[in-house]
Amino acid sequence: MAPTIVGQDLTVVLEALQAAVAPGAFTADPDALAARAVDASFIPPDGDPIALVAPRTTDEVSAVMRLAHSRGIPVVPQGGLTGLAGGASAVAGAILLDLSRMTTISRIDTDDHVAVAQPGVITEHLANAAAEHGLFYPPDPASWSTSTIGGNVATNAGGMRCVKYGVTRDWVRTLQVVLADGTVIHTRPGTVKAVAGLDLTSLFVGSEGTLGIVTEVTVALLPAPGPSRGVSAGFPSVATALRAANAIMAGPHRPSTLELLDAVVVEAVCRLEPGAGLPAGAGAWLFAVTDALVGADDDLAEFARVARAHGASSVEVADDEADVARLLAARRLLNPAMREYRGASLNEDVCVPRSQLPAVLAAIEELSREIGLPIGTGGHVGDGNLHPVVAYDPARPEELAVARTAHHRIMALAVEHGGTVSGEHGIGTEKLGALPMELTPRVRDLQVALKGVLDPKGICNPGKKL
Amino acid sequence: MAPTIVGQDLTVVLEALQAAVAPGAFTADPDALAARAVDASFIPPDGDPIALVAPRTTDEVSAVMRLAHSRGIPVVPQGGLTGLAGGASAVAGAILLDLSRMTTISRIDTDDHVAVAQPGVITEHLANAAAEHGLFYPPDPASWSTSTIGGNVATNAGGMRCVKYGVTRDWVRTLQVVLADGTVIHTRPGTVKAVAGLDLTSLFVGSEGTLGIVTEVTVALLPAPGPSRGVSAGFPSVATALRAANAIMAGPHRPSTLELLDAVVVEAVCRLEPGAGLPAGAGAWLFAVTDALVGADDDLAEFARVARAHGASSVEVADDEADVARLLAARRLLNPAMREYRGASLNEDVCVPRSQLPAVLAAIEELSREIGLPIGTGGHVGDGNLHPVVAYDPARPEELAVARTAHHRIMALAVEHGGTVSGEHGIGTEKLGALPMELTPRVRDLQVALKGVLDPKGICNPGKKL
Repeated sequence: MAPTIVGQDLTVVLEALQAAVAPGAFTADPDALAARAVDASFIPPDGDPIALVAPRTTDEVSAVMRLAHSRGIPVVPQGGLTGLAGGASAVAGAILLDLSRMTTISRIDTDDHVAVAQPGVITEHLANAAAEHGLFYPPDPASWSTSTIGGNVATNAGGMRCVKYGVTRDWVRTLQVVLADGTVIHTRPGTVKAVAGLDLTSLFVGSEGTLGIVTEVTVALLPAPGPSRGVSAGFPSVATALRAANAIMAGPHRPSTLELLDAVVVEAVCRLEPGAGLPAGAGAWLFAVTDALVGADDDLAEFARVARAHGASSVEVADDEADVARLLAARRLLNPAMREYRGASLNEDVCVPRSQLPAVLAAIEELSREIGLPIGTGGHVGDGNLHPVVAYDPARPEELAVARTAHHRIMALAVEHGGTVSGEHGIGTEKLGALPMELTPRVRDLQVALKGVLDPKGICNPGKKL
Repeated sequence: MAPTIVGQDLTVVLEALQAAVAPGAFTADPDALAARAVDASFIPPDGDPIALVAPRTTDEVSAVMRLAHSRGIPVVPQGGLTGLAGGASAVAGAILLDLSRMTTISRIDTDDHVAVAQPGVITEHLANAAAEHGLFYPPDPASWSTSTIGGNVATNAGGMRCVKYGVTRDWVRTLQVVLADGTVIHTRPGTVKAVAGLDLTSLFVGSEGTLGIVTEVTVALLPAPGPSRGVSAGFPSVATALRAANAIMAGPHRPSTLELLDAVVVEAVCRLEPGAGLPAGAGAWLFAVTDALVGADDDLAEFARVARAHGASSVEVADDEADVARLLAARRLLNPAMREYRGASLNEDVCVPRSQLPAVLAAIEELSREIGLPIGTGGHVGDGNLHPVVAYDPARPEELAVARTAHHRIMALAVEHGGTVSGEHGIGTEKLGALPMELTPRVRDLQVALKGVLDPKGICNPGKKL
């Protein structure tokens, strides 16, 4: 339960908070608070926040945390509000700590191949800044044109390039963190290797703001890859497409992206955007991209060969970046296209070992038949990461209830097949109820106790994640 | 301070310990204990252990930990005893928990590209087992023919392939851990992505046995790479070799190994093994290897071009795996060759941002002149990870004292240049004194408190790492 601050106390707190940040960086205006109360999960918060601060410096964040800590006031760190699990939504009585104005990229280092950025930098801006120096920041969550690097760190964001390059955690070299009590630390040196301390960096990545406030992110970069080119293939069924995907992954031609859409989604996308370039009527669509600088022709030939060998009904080469971008845009229509079925949709985010994908996808199809609602699945199949989307009619509360049950059953399915309830979106508040499926009571207790060390008063994004 | 158990109490404990493991897996024989009292740091332990147990199952480890926890007895987990920082050396009054008999590889999965191994599996055996299935386990610490995967996890071991493939942590998918009180947990599902919990896996990797006992390791594998081929180049100076190394790293031809030896080491190796293949008389030696399946010829041509462009005095192509193996063997003579100078040597393990290598190497040369002892440096320069080796005469205590001072000054140099006191060997007991250079008191306190959550009685490898 959030503490309640009323009357004179509240006035004192708000004055102190205003004094902690630069002029114009504080507001208690109800409309301003309401505008930043909910993230892209659209889960309503459990009550009203007391104020919004939007600092530009680590010192301001530190001052805010010192105040919050001394008073026991909850703090909700926020970025682009693109989170899908409620991790950035307000909690009652909280200070909303809007980090989206901390947008400085202080360094792009072409010798050490690192970039240093404040948490509010839009991820795509960071990638573009690196690209201007011939360098490459690989993680590309779907939200990257509006999500922030701080938010990506908070959720350990994934994306479509993970199959080759891994997740956000793999690219975070070191973090500057303001601890719950306002102390500023660095998690480790910015070197490639460092084993002096325990791995605090990885602990903060994916902690969804529950352990402290990340105020500077140092990420590793790579030399720029080659242009993206891909093979787009229609298949008679999800099963055949998955066999092709596994064959690609088993071989030496590593794709930089390997995406699947099932028949329900292909149909929905073709209806929404007939010119999107998907193979209408296919039982599944597989898109394998390479960004190799050397050997890209061989990669494409191999992707096409494997697709044909597994019974592809259509095989097309997307031979330049514009073609690839057009098909990736089609892939990103997963959610809007599924909404068209019945007006609303619930997006899942499970991840299973790749070998379990055929069984899990067959069970999801069966579930859809059983509940009588369309479920369309898109996925980063090279990683085993699926986004099954359940369509429902928002005017019919009973359909929402059924969709929610399906949601839960899909997570249970994933866990039964050795998987996780969240591959990349996070837990936030949305999936708190699903945690017991995956984590034993002992592991949950350990996590709560670890948080207790870093945030003894429980002010950092309380009620989320753990 | 370790607890002291004497007389009847000790007898009871030893009987209970013997009962906790299978017949033959317990000994209190002083010779057997002495044989496993010290790791490859050769730092003498602070007292005698009470017993050695060598279980084969997680259940036995759990039983041992339950007993140790209930009695407050320290436990030192051990593997191949190849550690260079004292992390696996005995502590007074401890149970030595020898995991080197837990050698089962229970799974090599060609669909999911994972291997599941007990901690006592020799790392090279694991790599060979993967290779039999056309798969590849990348980390290759120098000790890999005698070190264990459990030990590699404990130290977050590096090696020569890190420049392309990263460190052990990057390949650990999930861990089975016996907690201090004997509870068995899994740190996360074995999926590629998983964000439900805090990252316990990364916390255990590199914790040097201080948080719990790893009893099963699931690692990710890759499809097998191409054969290793390389370019071996002599340079007039370390400075020119480093410029060439940085130019290689800045380009798109990523080496799988990029090693440097300075003039002192080249001379020492050439004296020890005139046929080792190093360019005698060179001011520095650089060896760039590629294992690309596609484009290896281009990689080699580029490495050679860069070397020549930076003034290489000799450029030779190591065109097959045998040539490469011979030169890597020469590189591995760093320590034995340096010992030849004066009979003994101290090996350092610092890591700095790559841009800082020229300044740090120049300062080390200056330090050698100042102290009048040879310092030869080898390094994984693509990662900025240096192993300066100080030669001294073991018959002259004053030289050992000077060598130790130099050791300390090299670590300070690394920290001054944004680096770490340990890139891959760990802290153990050897570098406890250096921690304050790198970690603030607050960060050290946090780490101790995090250990307190996992090991409230402080029985897991006490006196190490933190």
